[in-house]
Amino acid sequence: MSETLAQSGTAYEPTERTVPSRNRSRASYDRDLVHSILDEAYVCHLGFVRDGAPIVLPTLYGRVGERLYVHGSTGSRPARMADPGLPVCLTVTHVDGLVLARSAFHHSINYRSVVVHGTAHQVTDPDELREALDALVDQVVPGRSYDSRPANAKELAATAVLRLDLAEVSAKVRTGGPNDEPQDLDLPHWSGVVPVATRYGTPIPAETLAADVALPDYMTVL
Amino acid sequence: MSETLAQSGTAYEPTERTVPSRNRSRASYDRDLVHSILDEAYVCHLGFVRDGAPIVLPTLYGRVGERLYVHGSTGSRPARMADPGLPVCLTVTHVDGLVLARSAFHHSINYRSVVVHGTAHQVTDPDELREALDALVDQVVPGRSYDSRPANAKELAATAVLRLDLAEVSAKVRTGGPNDEPQDLDLPHWSGVVPVATRYGTPIPAETLAADVALPDYMTVL
Repeated sequence: MSETLAQSGTAYEPTERTVPSRNRSRASYDRDLVHSILDEAYVCHLGFVRDGAPIVLPTLYGRVGERLYVHGSTGSRPARMADPGLPVCLTVTHVDGLVLARSAFHHSINYRSVVVHGTAHQVTDPDELREALDALVDQVVPGRSYDSRPANAKELAATAVLRLDLAEVSAKVRTGGPNDEPQDLDLPHWSGVVPVATRYGTPIPAETLAADVALPDYMTVL
Repeated sequence: MSETLAQSGTAYEPTERTVPSRNRSRASYDRDLVHSILDEAYVCHLGFVRDGAPIVLPTLYGRVGERLYVHGSTGSRPARMADPGLPVCLTVTHVDGLVLARSAFHHSINYRSVVVHGTAHQVTDPDELREALDALVDQVVPGRSYDSRPANAKELAATAVLRLDLAEVSAKVRTGGPNDEPQDLDLPHWSGVVPVATRYGTPIPAETLAADVALPDYMTVL
């Protein structure tokens, strides 16, 4: 019951490390905003500490409600370090625009990012493992998990999945034009925003693909 | 002299933490490849350790030869932590394609990434500081630093720039189609690659921009 309430349009509780030291007006703890930023991406940057030093690796993730899943081979470093629990920071960033101001100082980027702090745990429950693997595939192409061969026992044994709960979370968003200084407005430099987006090209079938296997409907919306 | 030699098409020396624990064939230490991946991007994910836990933040960077620069307000956490030196991991990732295999297990991403380990130091030399700030602007739009007002004394005082030498560095690249299992080739699932690229839209002038300020030539190549 509390979980249902927690998921209905409420906000994450700010903590000392999710309140930024600057540009606080860009920070948000809104659950729907966080979910929307997470759901539009599939690659995150996962940070953890090894021998006292930070490591940041790009990796795929999937969201199921208030849980994120990342996966790797059972021999990968995060997987080997995740017992009994690995402190991580998982960050997802969309670049939406290049912000060019008259002054070098006010150049910026329009972006939406989510930063998740927490402890990742290895998934051992077989049902949760399968749900997580489906989520990882569907995060990249929604609907794809129903149209591919599920992992067999050997593949499952080779795959480690880590779970990270969405609890200590913040989003950060910058939108709009450059914040030029009033005294700079007459300078002869162009000022404005260059929109940035992700472009998906025409799918390239594998050379081995039979001619009668059509492009699935769920891929035409990419 | 050794610096000149080091920059002429050679490779970075692999270290224990730049040799991946899996998919080693995807790793590269080639200097030109590393530079090309870095030069195509402007947002990195910077990891550092605070109170024993990892923090990963998206931030802009610029490259000058074998040095990377990141910047922030003097009050930002990395800047405050960078005296006498902050261990960091700086990661840059390009997504080039979605790799859809017949099996869920062999789904993947075509990507190019660079991971830099090292200790970041605050830039205090005024000449290096200006060069770094120019590089940060030119990393986003090459040529832009010459066509904007340079930082004034007040702005310089508010800006902290950290330097990270390119020494402990690796690239990782995945290209090509899905690695389907031979026994999966007859399954009725589409298999192939969806190309992914960054799309730059039509620049949107600031509302305050005078009609006689044309779009600069260096922006038409974006």
